[in-house]
This record gives sequence, structure tokens and C-alpha cells, in this order.
Amino acid sequence: MAVATEQSLETLAINTIRTLSIDAVQQANSGHPGLPLGAAPMAYVLWTEYLKHNPHDPHWPDRDRFVLSAGHGSMLLYSLLHLTGYALSLDEIKRFRQLGSKTPGHPERSHTVGVEVTTGPLGQGFANGVGMAIAEAFLAARYNRPGHEIIDHYTYGIVSDGDLMEGVAHEAASLAGHLKLGKLIYLYDQNHITLAGSLDLGFSEDVAKRYEALGWQTVSVDGMNTAAVRGALDQARADTSRPTLVLANTIIGYGSPKKANTFGVHGSPLGPDEVQATKEALGWPTEPPFHIPEEVTAKFQEAVTQGQAAQRDWQTRFEAYAEAFPDLAAELTRALAGHLPVGWDAELPRFEVGAKPMATRKASEAAIAAFHKHIPTFIGGSADLNPSTNTGMKGAGDFESPLAAGSDGHQGTLGGDWSYAGRNVHFGVREHAMGSAVNGMAAHGGVIPFGATFLVFSDYMRPAIRLAALQGLKSVFVFTHDSIAVGEDGPTHEPVEHVMSLRTIPHLTVIRPADPNETVEAWRAALTHDGPTALILTRQELDILDRSGAKSDLARGGYVLADAADGSDPDIVLIGTGSEMALGVMARDLLAEHGFNARVVSLPSWELFEAQDAAYKAEVLGPAGIPRLSVEAGTTLGWCRYTGERGASVGIDTYGASGPGAEVLAHYGFTKEHVAAEALRLLGRPDLADAVEAPRGGETAGEEAEGDEGHS
Amino acid sequence: MAVATEQSLETLAINTIRTLSIDAVQQANSGHPGLPLGAAPMAYVLWTEYLKHNPHDPHWPDRDRFVLSAGHGSMLLYSLLHLTGYALSLDEIKRFRQLGSKTPGHPERSHTVGVEVTTGPLGQGFANGVGMAIAEAFLAARYNRPGHEIIDHYTYGIVSDGDLMEGVAHEAASLAGHLKLGKLIYLYDQNHITLAGSLDLGFSEDVAKRYEALGWQTVSVDGMNTAAVRGALDQARADTSRPTLVLANTIIGYGSPKKANTFGVHGSPLGPDEVQATKEALGWPTEPPFHIPEEVTAKFQEAVTQGQAAQRDWQTRFEAYAEAFPDLAAELTRALAGHLPVGWDAELPRFEVGAKPMATRKASEAAIAAFHKHIPTFIGGSADLNPSTNTGMKGAGDFESPLAAGSDGHQGTLGGDWSYAGRNVHFGVREHAMGSAVNGMAAHGGVIPFGATFLVFSDYMRPAIRLAALQGLKSVFVFTHDSIAVGEDGPTHEPVEHVMSLRTIPHLTVIRPADPNETVEAWRAALTHDGPTALILTRQELDILDRSGAKSDLARGGYVLADAADGSDPDIVLIGTGSEMALGVMARDLLAEHGFNARVVSLPSWELFEAQDAAYKAEVLGPAGIPRLSVEAGTTLGWCRYTGERGASVGIDTYGASGPGAEVLAHYGFTKEHVAAEALRLLGRPDLADAVEAPRGGETAGEEAEGDEGHS
Repeated sequence: MAVATEQSLETLAINTIRTLSIDAVQQANSGHPGLPLGAAPMAYVLWTEYLKHNPHDPHWPDRDRFVLSAGHGSMLLYSLLHLTGYALSLDEIKRFRQLGSKTPGHPERSHTVGVEVTTGPLGQGFANGVGMAIAEAFLAARYNRPGHEIIDHYTYGIVSDGDLMEGVAHEAASLAGHLKLGKLIYLYDQNHITLAGSLDLGFSEDVAKRYEALGWQTVSVDGMNTAAVRGALDQARADTSRPTLVLANTIIGYGSPKKANTFGVHGSPLGPDEVQATKEALGWPTEPPFHIPEEVTAKFQEAVTQGQAAQRDWQTRFEAYAEAFPDLAAELTRALAGHLPVGWDAELPRFEVGAKPMATRKASEAAIAAFHKHIPTFIGGSADLNPSTNTGMKGAGDFESPLAAGSDGHQGTLGGDWSYAGRNVHFGVREHAMGSAVNGMAAHGGVIPFGATFLVFSDYMRPAIRLAALQGLKSVFVFTHDSIAVGEDGPTHEPVEHVMSLRTIPHLTVIRPADPNETVEAWRAALTHDGPTALILTRQELDILDRSGAKSDLARGGYVLADAADGSDPDIVLIGTGSEMALGVMARDLLAEHGFNARVVSLPSWELFEAQDAAYKAEVLGPAGIPRLSVEAGTTLGWCRYTGERGASVGIDTYGASGPGAEVLAHYGFTKEHVAAEALRLLGRPDLADAVEAPRGGETAGEEAEGDEGHS
Repeated sequence: MAVATEQSLETLAINTIRTLSIDAVQQANSGHPGLPLGAAPMAYVLWTEYLKHNPHDPHWPDRDRFVLSAGHGSMLLYSLLHLTGYALSLDEIKRFRQLGSKTPGHPERSHTVGVEVTTGPLGQGFANGVGMAIAEAFLAARYNRPGHEIIDHYTYGIVSDGDLMEGVAHEAASLAGHLKLGKLIYLYDQNHITLAGSLDLGFSEDVAKRYEALGWQTVSVDGMNTAAVRGALDQARADTSRPTLVLANTIIGYGSPKKANTFGVHGSPLGPDEVQATKEALGWPTEPPFHIPEEVTAKFQEAVTQGQAAQRDWQTRFEAYAEAFPDLAAELTRALAGHLPVGWDAELPRFEVGAKPMATRKASEAAIAAFHKHIPTFIGGSADLNPSTNTGMKGAGDFESPLAAGSDGHQGTLGGDWSYAGRNVHFGVREHAMGSAVNGMAAHGGVIPFGATFLVFSDYMRPAIRLAALQGLKSVFVFTHDSIAVGEDGPTHEPVEHVMSLRTIPHLTVIRPADPNETVEAWRAALTHDGPTALILTRQELDILDRSGAKSDLARGGYVLADAADGSDPDIVLIGTGSEMALGVMARDLLAEHGFNARVVSLPSWELFEAQDAAYKAEVLGPAGIPRLSVEAGTTLGWCRYTGERGASVGIDTYGASGPGAEVLAHYGFTKEHVAAEALRLLGRPDLADAVEAPRGGETAGEEAEGDEGHS
């Protein structure tokens, strides 16, 4: 090897990234070599000359964030992490895509040091990054003081053609442009190739023009030319009032004589012959594999010395800040550690039995109003539905760029001047970006984020909900208008399967509180729980439940709300959630009139309940052999877990209908008479059941668990 | 009233739309008055001067299509339908949003004449319309001949600010621009107001510039000025090589003195006083409500005479076409009627036991290859995954604009010149638009559309799947890579809850075939079934199952694959789906070695099975009291329906992991040993179970139904 000049050291370093990547993919005989080969130059520049980070402390709060939205290019990220000195060994690189390794096929947060968010499903990382930039802007606005720029970091990412096709990325880009997030900089790995062919099979956009229309700065460069990339990044950072998309023209699979610029190189190993040919073309030794020249190691590991120095400097500055602003510093420290402030729950509302009925979306609003001022980093919003989801925080300000044209003349604002210190985020009609951005905010740390929409539109953001659960992010999702009680808006707006389908997502806590007091407890559970939570709230008013006979509460996921009057074993157990609890309570009274003792169980959260021990669960559900009837205005699929073979379910397994909410509920059988009748049938008294259900001379009071054909 | 001149007749007509709308909303005390008030002028122009339709035959195949993507503005559509003479009476208008009426809160296909697709969830109608335009372009390219323009109609729509924020609409717009769908024309009701406030709370885009970047023609006009709207529509129709977005500036709630231009008027009734004030401002009699001047009725109903004449003319032309091209005409007639051609299934493949194992995605490819040439209107594609979903139809051409720059130099094409007669649609990385466009194609009629992606990405298009099921559209969704067997790509790509969560969607048929022969049957079921189907296929190879002992097949949703050897009652019933059937078969052999008779049931489709009578289902599942074990590489939630209280499930309730597929399956317990062991535990023989599971000196063969914590 010739004497290493700066130029050839750069080339050696870039080719180290390339060859580590193709060797790992080849060893696994699985993976995506194309992106690492093509994006290595710009990634090298970003990681060694721009990214502020300390490989020895991946949790340093003021580090720049990097997101590989094109998660299939994971070997690019793993190579960089290893080379720059993160705790990711070469052995792990060699175990790429093997069971139990730290180098899974797509990067996973918490699984591998230095991975900020789990990516893979296209568009998600893009939107996560927007959330990170929101968090940075908010924390900077709230905590920085003149002379104390304590929070000051960028969010970078590498995004692909596929990312830019996805709707979620477009929504996020539109939001970022509106918010003028000037410290968001994405390198677009523009190689005109996707998995199934050349990009132009399905894509003819003028991307730069589109992004300019969204309020982004765009810079187009040759992505294979490091000087050009540097220039682009400098331009990007110079513009502090717009996010930046660097359209970097790259050659997918660069270096591979046969496969460069083909769609085959996107997601298939090169094959041993082509690995060799590529190394030869790059002037790289063909043996051994995973070869890292010493001078390259030294070059990359400058990141450690630089990073440690930068962090030490920050630490010093933080100490000065703490001396000048001790309360703020303490608050920030606690927020960055993910701890709730002491006394956050000092003013939570309590609702008295007999008080005016209240929708749980309104109880949620009251709970938020009581705690948000005590949790100054609680930030979020809705997808253009604040007046309906009741998630606006009055007086907490609107999260907007202070540069936004004119801070007057707007409707629907929530108090104060527009600034990044506002805590109400107006996500717009962009449910999916909202979900992913909330995940990015949670991953960033320092904030407790939430997003809200109608339960039926949770479908629009389901991929983001899953990723929150997969990563254990503390994202709070608020879903209101939770059943056919929505009424007049009709079947497109009336959830049926949504609560149960959310329950199928592993490690997501789903809570459907039965009344205003349970709603407050639900918020407590969401805020003190380490993973994501979906809160399911009503549009319509509910009575305050009498819980004087209750043995526990929502924290245990399920509890006995009311038992057989004399403490004996019940004849039947009625299990309900949310708005249908009231039906259970009323049915209990009807059953008592007929001489039957019913226990009423509230089961607001299956996941919290399943976390209890077997003894508690058995105690709540009652002895085996006693029939159980579930009541929930949603699909019956899955309820057999609690009702068993001898049980039954009152539910709905077809679509709803448009009409006044109370009429719709009655039409589908959600009446106390029908619930009591179903209980009586389970108890072997169809005669009493018929009498209870049809007091008005032949008129059927409702439909069975199968629902009516309604809209097929 | 003064003598009606043409100008004031137009104003009267427009105000009739307005006042019918606000009266209906007020009567229901629910609904959205803002859009009808603001969009009435442009809707009037479109419906009376441009839309080719026959109110007396809403199924005329060559009618123009109209989609109200902003479905909340339903009263606008209902007013137009009633006034132009569709079978929608004034009584129904008066029953707006009442249970059982023909005027539900959001428009519903098949429920109300003249409604092409069910809308409400924003962005869906926008993407449906793109699908309709695709269908029109395809049918025109295939069936028209010189001098015989038999298929020649436009797709129009009214879209809102909210629609344009949604990612699905952006994806669809990008696709439509790429495809140069010149007969797609959308009126954008641009009123700068959304539900929660003024648009600028969250949106700062230059919409015209964005759409131009996507290849659309844009025309900006004053939407309240009918002459300007006419000019815009003329310009739109003059450009035959690009879809058009008419940015029509409107005033939401126009006419209401207090509420015009406010977000409150978006979705709340005006209130009786403001209804009166609005009528006064418009010069309308304040009594009676639902007032329709006679001259307005006459004017609107010109649509009937014009429509009938246009349809008669088309019928004459069709007869001439049928005479010149009898075979084509017969084929088209059958396709428009939704009938499959005779002999479509003449060449379906059959796979022999002992033949080389084959993934069901490959068997699907073989099935498609066998029938697609016999069903010339079978059209669809994947979200940039053809090589992986195996849904490319070789030789069927690429659905592309013949104007697309250069028909060479592309990669991943499927034969032939680019034209609208191609049947392979390259949807790009746009799962959500693909789902909604497929729905639009199905709603349009004349084609049998399908869309394909990885099962884990069904989440991206879930709202479209739900709408397909709600409307009973014949959309086929192909989902491959259906379990943790995906392997190396890791947990973001490994479905766990997806099959069960799809089962929760009412009226969706979910089919997970167990081998290549069941896959062929699955396609048969999908093609002959009147609603939507989700086909769940493997990435990995599966053995051809021996069905010589089977009593039925997939058409019944579930059947006995193999029974106890001597015909006696089994000791245990193993119920499996898809790739796990093979485990059930092998476990049966292991159990036989230990003296236990197992019945193996294949249950590829819960919905098809539940449609069978109780006797059949009982016959398949076996006598009560015999334990049942389910085996499916997915969530166990919901399986209790078939396994009951004394049963158990082998499944996975946590996330997967990255590693070779076979290792991952074994790691999570999907081995014949583990299945047999679970069966033995159910049979009360934990001793035998342990022996079967741990033959290798203490090494655990796998994990229980709860899965391991894996990635939490």
C-alpha cells in the first residue's frame, strides 16, 4: 500500500465501510449490499465530520441524532458504529443476521448500542426524525437561556427512494416544513432503483420541487463525491429556518462490476465471485474478509476523542447552567432521566357518584388539565381533532415556529405566542406521521409525548403503534369516539374491531376506562408505565360508577366492581369494559329482581390484568363452573379467553350504522334488558330472558352477538 | 320572485343545494354544513354541465364517476342525487343521519343509489378515484377500437384540505401523475379551514407546486364563481396527458353571516337562528324548510333527459361494436357484469404429493400464471415487491402511459410495450394507495383487481382493507412472508398478530393455505367470492400435503386432513393453518408412536368455516370433551374459539427475531417435537411430553405459547 495521504485515507475508510458490509451480507448469505456500497461516501462524511456524538456514551443527551430510515441498509450503520468505537465488536459484525447477535437484519433500538430507533418499514424513520427534531426544538426553547445553549443538536438521517414514496414520510415532511425545523437534515440516497426494478416503473416526481413546495431547503449533489457532500451539509446547516433534503445522487451497489445500478443488488447478497470482483475493482485485498486497515481504525476512532471532548465541554457548560438556573437544571435532568416530577399527580380530579355524567374524553381532558402544568415536558396533540378528542392543553401554547407568518388571525389556537416552547402540537390530518413522530419524540427522550385521534383512525397509524410496542417506547396514544355510540357519523367512523385488534399487538397496553374515575387511573397507568399505551375513550357521557364495593382498581387491569350482595358465590359473572360497564351494573339489578346474584367485573385492560398473578385473576373471574358473560361494544372474537366454553359475549361482529347514538346502541343490543336476557339464557332461563327482553308486545329489543347484517 | 333569468336560475339552483343541506343537517341536529355551503357552486357546474350520467340508470357502465372524497360533505351529494332525479326522495333527505335512512352521515356505496364508493375517512376517496381512472384507462385500451370508443369516461371528485394532508392521497397523487391519468379531474375545495381550526395551524404547503412536481396540471380559480369553474373544467379536460387538480378557493359555510369562514361551521349544525339568518342572507324564503322551487327541479332534471339520450346513444354504438367485434363485446359484457369467463380455471395447476416442496407464494404465482390469460381483466400488482410476492404476470405487460419517457432502459418490467392495456400495475412503495386504488378499481367494475405486499405491511393499508370489507368490494389482497419464518429480516418484517387482526375485520375473508394445492383452492375462493379476500402466503417452501384421507377441502374453510387411523374417535384434535399444518401432520406421527390417535384439521379460513352449518363444524372439530390443540405461527389471542377451555395453543405472543428462518421457528417452539409435547401435556402425559421435547440432554427445544421475552 502506498504512503497514506489524506485522500487515499478517506478512500480507504469509505471502502472499509463497503467491504465490511458486503462481507457481512455474504457471510449471512442474506441482506442488502446495495445501499452500503452506494451511500458509504456520504455516510463517512456525515459521521466523521459533522455528527456530534460520543461513541463511548450513546446516551449523552445533547448528541446529534442519526436515523437510518432506509433500515435495510443496516450494515452501513453497523459498520459505522463498529469503526467509530461504539461497543459493537467485529465478532458481532460477523454474526450479521444470526439469531441472538447484536446485528439483526434491520437496526433495533435498545438491542444494539447507537441505534436511536428501530427502522425497516419504510417511511417510519423519516417521521421519527421529525419527532426528534420537535423534541430538540421544544427542549431548547424551554430550557436554554442566553449564554446557556444546553440543548443544541441536529437530527440527521439517510432516507431512500422507497421512504420518499411512503405517505407517512410525506405527511411528516409537510409537518416539518410547516414547523420550520431548521435542524433536521436528511441525506436522500437517490439511486433511482428500488426492490422491484428501476424507480421509473412507478415514480416520476420532481422530488426537489415537491420538497420546496413543503417549505424545505433542497440541495442536489453527486452523492459519490465527498467534497460535494460536505458542501451540501454546510449549506444545510447554514439554513436554520427550514429542514433540508440533500438529494445525493448515488450508485446503488457501487463498485460491483456486474451488479452496480441494478435492482438485484438492492436486497440480495453479491455472491462470493462478485464480492471478490468488487474488492478487486475497489483496489481492496480479496483476503481476508472483514479487513480493516489500521490507519482506518485510527481515523474513525478520532470520533471517540472528539466525542469525549465535546461531551466534557458540555458537562462543564451544564454545570454552569445548573449553578445559574438550579431549578430548571433539576427539572431538565429529571426529564432527561424519564422521571415524572414529584407531585405531578397532586391535583388529579376525583368524580363523585351522582355527579353529572361525563364522557371519558372529557374526564381525560380534566385529568390532563390537572397534571400537564406539573409535567412541563408533557407535549402532544391531535390529528386535527382537538375539539373532539379534548386533548388541547389550554394555556400551554402552540408548538409553532416563531417565524410562522403572523401569529394572529389563526383559529383554534391554544393560547400564547407561537413558539417552540408551546406544548400543543398541531399534527394536522396526518395520523400516521403523528404516530411515528410521537415515537421519535419518545425515543429522543426528555419529553412525554402523546398523539390523539378517533379510535377508528388508529388504523391509519397502526404501523407506528406496532413499532412503539416493539421498541417499548413511552408513547401515549389517545383514541376517542370508541364505538358504535358515535352514532350519526355512521359505520366508517364507528369502531368495531379496533380495541381487540389493538390487543393483538404484543406489548401494547390497551386501556378502556369505564367512567371518569377510571379514566384518571388510566392516565396514571399510562404515565407511569414504561411502554406505549392506547387509551380508549368515549364520545358519549357515562355515569360515575359506584365503586364503594370494589376490591381493587384499574392498576390491576381488572377488578370486582360489585359482588353478590351477601358475599356468597355469584350465580353469574358479568365482565365489561368502558361504556358497557354501566350496562353490566344495570343488568345486575335486573337479575337481582329475578333472584339471581351477579358479580360485575370491570376489565379495563387485558394486558395489566394478565400481568397479575394467577390467584388474583382467579379471584376476580370467580370459580370455574360459574358462567361468564362479557359485554363490550366491539367484536366478540377473543373474549372466549375470559368467558370460556360455558360463557357468552354481548358484542358486535358487523359494521355499525348512521343514526343517533343511543338508537344505534339499542339497535345492536346494547341495552340492560338484552344483557340481562343473555345472562338469563346462560343461567338456563330462556323463559325469563324472553320476558325481560320483549316487554313491549313483540318488539325485539335488539340483536344477538352476531349483530344484524346491517351493512354487508 | 322576479322572472327567472338564466343567471338567477343558476343562483336559485345553487342555493337549493345549500338550503336543502343546511335544513337536513339542522333537522338531524348533526352533520357538516360548511362544505355544502361553500362547494355548492362548483358542484352545481360539474353535475349539470360536465358529468356524463343517467340518474335513471346509476349502473350505466360508461357513465362518468364522481367521488366525494370529503365524505363528511354528504348532504352536498345527497342534494345533487335527489335534485337530478336519482331514486333518493325528499323524505330520505329529511331523514338524514337517522337510523335506517338512505342518507347516512357519510355516503355509503350500495346503500344509496348513485354513491360510487363509501367515503368518510379522509384520503380514501381520492385514492379510490385513481383506481377508477386506472380501470377506465385499462378497459379503454383493451376494448376500444378505431371508430368504436366504447369506454370513454372521466373520473371526477371533490377533495378537501384534509384529504390533501393525508399520506394515502399523496401516494395516490404521485401514482396518478406517473401514470399520466389524463381523465382524472379533482376539484379541491380549498377553504383553508379544517375541523380544529384554520389550516395554517399545521399546513403551509404550496399545494399547486407540489402537484405540479407530481406531474399534475393545476388550475387555480375562485370556487365561488361558476364561470371560473367552467373555465377550469374546460382546461382540465383539454389536458389529456395529466391528471388535474382544480384549486378552487371557496368559503366554508358561505352565506352564514356569523359562521362563514370559521372552523365551527365545518362539523356542527348552524342552529335554527343561523339557518334562518343564512336563508335571509341568500334571499331564500325562511319557510318552509326543504323548499325546492319548481323551476329548479326542472333545471336539474334536464340531467335525466340528457342522460337517457347519452345512454341510448351509447347503447346504439355498443350494438355496432358488438356487430363488428362480437367476441370482444361478449368478453366486455361479461366482465362488466362481474362474471368470470367460462373455462377460466381450465389450467389450474395440481401438485403431487412427494413433488419438490414449494412456497405458497410460488404456488400462487403458478396459479396466477395459469388463470390470468383466461381472465383478461385480472389486473394488479405489488407495492414494489413483485420479485418477492411473486405476483408479476409475465407477458401481461406493464400498465404504464405510452407517453412515459422512453419505453426502454427500465428494469423489472414484465414484457411488451408500455401501455394502458398492460395488466401489471407498479404501485411503488405505496401500500396504502395501492389498497385504496384496488378498491376504486373494484368499485368501478369490469376488472378484477389485486394488490400485494408483505403481510407485516398490511398494517400500512388497513383502512383500505376495512373499507373493502364494509362495502363488500371484490378486492383481492395478497400478503406474503407471513410469519417469523421470514427469518433474517427480523421483527419489523415478521408478522405475529396480523392474521388474527385481519380476522377481526368483519366481512373480510382471510385464507391461509397450508400447501400449494390449498393455495390454488384459495385463489378459486377469492375469485368466486363476492367480497374482499386476504390471501396469506409463505416465503418459505412447504411440502405438498397428502390429502388422500381428507373429507373436504378449502372451500368449506376447514376440513379433516387426516383422522385417527381406524376411524375411531381421536384422542386429540390438532388444528392448524398454513405452514404449521405440516407440524400438525408430523406431530400426529409422533403421537401415534406413543399410542395416541390424533386427528389433524386444516382450518385455512375462519370465515368460510363459520359459514358452514353447525353439523359440519361439529363433525370437523370432533366431539366435545376431546382436547384440541391449535398450531399457528401467530398470536394465540382468539384461538380459544376453537380450542375451548380444555384446549391449548402453540403460537407466538411476542415479537420475532433476526436469524435464519428455520432457527427462528425452532427458537419459538415451532417444531414437531414441541407440538407433540404440548399435545401430550393436554392428554395428561407430561412425562412423555418432556421426553419428546428434550432428547438432546437438557437442551430445550423451544418456547411455550407465550413465546420468549425476545424483544420487549
